[in-house]
Amino acid sequence: MEKSHDLPQVLLLKPPLDMEVFGQDRFSSDKFRFLKAWESPLPLDQFLQAQAQSVQAILVSGGIPVTAETIRLLPALKLLMTTGAGLNHIDMPECRRRGIAVANAGSVPSADVADLAVGLLIDVLRKVSASDRYVRRGLWTTNGDFTLGSKVGGKRVGIVGLGNIGSLVAKRLEAFGCCISYNSRKQKPSVSYPFYSNVHELAANSDVLIICCGLTDQTHHMIDKEVLLALGKEGVLVNIGRGAIIDEQELVRCLVHGEIKGAGLDVFEKEPDVPKELFELDNVVLSPHCANWTGETFNDRQKYVVGNLEAFFSNKPLLSSVVDD
Amino acid sequence: MEKSHDLPQVLLLKPPLDMEVFGQDRFSSDKFRFLKAWESPLPLDQFLQAQAQSVQAILVSGGIPVTAETIRLLPALKLLMTTGAGLNHIDMPECRRRGIAVANAGSVPSADVADLAVGLLIDVLRKVSASDRYVRRGLWTTNGDFTLGSKVGGKRVGIVGLGNIGSLVAKRLEAFGCCISYNSRKQKPSVSYPFYSNVHELAANSDVLIICCGLTDQTHHMIDKEVLLALGKEGVLVNIGRGAIIDEQELVRCLVHGEIKGAGLDVFEKEPDVPKELFELDNVVLSPHCANWTGETFNDRQKYVVGNLEAFFSNKPLLSSVVDD
Repeated sequence: MEKSHDLPQVLLLKPPLDMEVFGQDRFSSDKFRFLKAWESPLPLDQFLQAQAQSVQAILVSGGIPVTAETIRLLPALKLLMTTGAGLNHIDMPECRRRGIAVANAGSVPSADVADLAVGLLIDVLRKVSASDRYVRRGLWTTNGDFTLGSKVGGKRVGIVGLGNIGSLVAKRLEAFGCCISYNSRKQKPSVSYPFYSNVHELAANSDVLIICCGLTDQTHHMIDKEVLLALGKEGVLVNIGRGAIIDEQELVRCLVHGEIKGAGLDVFEKEPDVPKELFELDNVVLSPHCANWTGETFNDRQKYVVGNLEAFFSNKPLLSSVVDD
Repeated sequence: MEKSHDLPQVLLLKPPLDMEVFGQDRFSSDKFRFLKAWESPLPLDQFLQAQAQSVQAILVSGGIPVTAETIRLLPALKLLMTTGAGLNHIDMPECRRRGIAVANAGSVPSADVADLAVGLLIDVLRKVSASDRYVRRGLWTTNGDFTLGSKVGGKRVGIVGLGNIGSLVAKRLEAFGCCISYNSRKQKPSVSYPFYSNVHELAANSDVLIICCGLTDQTHHMIDKEVLLALGKEGVLVNIGRGAIIDEQELVRCLVHGEIKGAGLDVFEKEPDVPKELFELDNVVLSPHCANWTGETFNDRQKYVVGNLEAFFSNKPLLSSVVDD
């Protein structure tokens, strides 16, 4: 066995959340060791120039930005591994230019994210959080019965982005008797759900819109005033993608003025800041970006991350196909 | 067309909730008219003796008790129609003795109830209501990330009572990748889920117990201390049946002391009173007995109730099969 200091290094810019939750031991391997930028007193650029010239792999999590500047300071970098699903915090053009492989946790967190999307939808339609507040405030006893909710079955659900997560959302909601249609970059030949090439048209034909796509230049503020008005006064929006896919200011206005019926939001434009206007509304459910936040998935992801890094340093194929389409 | 005062009368003891929500017009028919006990200044027994001797049908909702004493004051009664699913508020032996048909809303509300059961389960496992409170209190900004939840998929879900509602819960949770088993009065030959004749044994082999049965002498406090301890420290309980199926005092103790992991409760022993100890707990979701509480289902049920009463007065078969097994 190689001595620890002979092992190749995996750069960490900040402590990954998973490591904070589970401790570092769970991530240790006899194939690599971690180089921790935050333990150095040097500014990041100087640290990278002094210590990271031979670093071939970097592990990032929790939306920590990996900019072109950082990548340029790592001449030997060949693998960028991220524990999340989104790639919006990574300078993908620079990775492409340099031929750096980018891998994420693949489909490991997808089921959790889909589960929360469905949970948020049931909550908004059936007012679960709002009625829980009602009971805890003692209002059931003093004010009597709670207000009526809306039935899940029969709802026309438009899924924006029918990848891993969107497909799992569709599968779950079919079991509730919802009618699924979708919008995606292109129509999927293997899928029988009605396809809308235009998200505005999808919204106009849906009772519920669930945002399951990634954040890119193309999807930034894709859910704008026009789409929200097309969804309409009886429409519900669920977002488990990224906050900036929606024009948040416009969404808040629509929710406050009843121009859409309600929303279940796991993501926001300026996390952890959430628009204060939403705090007083009973027609929204607010979740602190924790769609993949389960012990089981953190555990599976840790094994997946370590396995992927070990495969890389053993010159074996990566467990996750490299994401860059 | 008959004059209104020639129409047969349907007795109402109290205003049905549905009528309060939608107004009485939606329940009007040219086949019958309502006789409203609450509009008389007389005490109920005197009113019934004076006005209701020819009444053949009674419509009750919201758990209003129909006692043997009331039934004995209605010598012509042939149909007792209830808008709810439960029959625990009706003196069934007296109905049987008299040959009075008892009909409920059949499977009309079943999907709603199943949806809420799944919504409560996702909420408890993924801490949806608790994380909504966290965000609304501004704690995401000040305290950072929320705590981890537990994955829905892979959970062993034990369903107590595999009737209409239980079967719909099972169908939904299969789509999430849960493993279903059940307890019921007797094994169902057409069902392939594992059957446990003993609810204690089912609890010992489940991560989640969902109570979908009715309240009877046999099921009263069926979920007692032993069953809760068999469910265990990682176990979650969901109740959309009736409060008194669970020994509530024991349940509160188990939740406060962490002897089970959490609970989603739509029903309680002494509604609308909910044990105050639960108000401060983050591992419970409290719902004010509103599992069938949607506009769509109220609407469908109104049509169903009117249709059933019209069928009765036209000597046609009832829409719902009479429930008394």
